[in-house]
Amino acid sequence: MTYCVAMRLSDGLVFASDSRTNAGVDHIATFKKLHVFRHDSERVLVVQCAGNLATTQSIISLLNSRVDAQEGPNLLQVTSMYDAAMLIGATVREVIHRDSQSQQSGSTADFSCSLILGGQISGETPRLFHIYPEGNFIEATHDTPYFQIGESKYGKPIIDRVLTEDTPLEQAMCCALISIDSTLRSNLSVGLPLDVMIYRADSFDISEQQRITENDPYFITIRKAWAEGLLHTFRQLPPFPARG
Amino acid sequence: MTYCVAMRLSDGLVFASDSRTNAGVDHIATFKKLHVFRHDSERVLVVQCAGNLATTQSIISLLNSRVDAQEGPNLLQVTSMYDAAMLIGATVREVIHRDSQSQQSGSTADFSCSLILGGQISGETPRLFHIYPEGNFIEATHDTPYFQIGESKYGKPIIDRVLTEDTPLEQAMCCALISIDSTLRSNLSVGLPLDVMIYRADSFDISEQQRITENDPYFITIRKAWAEGLLHTFRQLPPFPARG
Repeated sequence: MTYCVAMRLSDGLVFASDSRTNAGVDHIATFKKLHVFRHDSERVLVVQCAGNLATTQSIISLLNSRVDAQEGPNLLQVTSMYDAAMLIGATVREVIHRDSQSQQSGSTADFSCSLILGGQISGETPRLFHIYPEGNFIEATHDTPYFQIGESKYGKPIIDRVLTEDTPLEQAMCCALISIDSTLRSNLSVGLPLDVMIYRADSFDISEQQRITENDPYFITIRKAWAEGLLHTFRQLPPFPARG
Repeated sequence: MTYCVAMRLSDGLVFASDSRTNAGVDHIATFKKLHVFRHDSERVLVVQCAGNLATTQSIISLLNSRVDAQEGPNLLQVTSMYDAAMLIGATVREVIHRDSQSQQSGSTADFSCSLILGGQISGETPRLFHIYPEGNFIEATHDTPYFQIGESKYGKPIIDRVLTEDTPLEQAMCCALISIDSTLRSNLSVGLPLDVMIYRADSFDISEQQRITENDPYFITIRKAWAEGLLHTFRQLPPFPARG
């Protein structure tokens, strides 16, 4: 499995992805699930992937090769984030159709995937989309400023509790990392290192990418502080009143 | 869906269940999912149910009617919790087999269910089992002192962080309620009221059962304190260090 989360905030976008892929517990590997497309100071597109690795790698390869070949339509030609989401959705359908049509009868292989697309194209504000295996998609709004893909349930409560659209980017990244930490503790199929990126609105700058390992001092600090804070909060709660 | 959690601790057992059942979002109802069997001061058995409501109601009905008819084997005759788990597992298989064998071809109805069985039979310590749709089961141990069924992921991180076998019963119930609160906030298919029960080892007493509604003063207090404590802890965390 996978766990990726992305947030669309007043100041920009926040992305965080784990890097574990597994086909069974004895076939575990590390693959980056956060991919960045940039063109001058005119567009930044970030794609996060969950699901069948063959499918998601093919999608990214096709998107890249069509950019390189300057074949149209490609991600550097589309004129809006909505069109970028449509293009990626079409590529999702293309790859899943190609790979599943020759499936042996009786095979239960699952070729599906889910993607998050976030970024900005000059002339628009930053936008964030969740693209489904069927190639259709939804966009983050004021009411729901974040999307998750993969093993999303463990890390959802903390985001629901603390995130609003006005959360500063650095705090939102802290929230995303705590959300991933909760998932790491409860689910083996999500693993370090993490790939994270902050995108500041209108900057068209992709330099704020980092790989976070288990030795990252900041990640160690907040994991510890969060665990201690939760324990402290829990110990302050009154115990359940026994019936007298 | 459903969310039930049960814990096997040094001092006894803790059970907490939501009460929402739904077949689609427009067919929501309240059903108790915590069922208690007791015989004198010799045995207490508690069963929690998740899954197909027709299946789980039939299982509880059959278990009850066989106790009433003094047909053997029944839950008041078995001599160990292990045998009780076997008996319930057999009843699970019986009901699922009965209901699914005449299924129309092409129907995708899911008749499966998961159960938690906890309790004590005189001569044994309290024991806790998780019974699968296949009728087989696992028992809680020192290393894993709790089981969850239904929508378990949202509420798992908090239990993993604070529960140990030595947690006092009243604190463990507080933890169970916080775990359910996290689930309620993130998943519509889990709903109030809650049915909870504390069983103290060797007491053979079932009087510590309560129904907790949204107006329950204790539940209101800990939900609020937990939400505030989490927010406070989060706000104390250092923000993600921007790359200079």
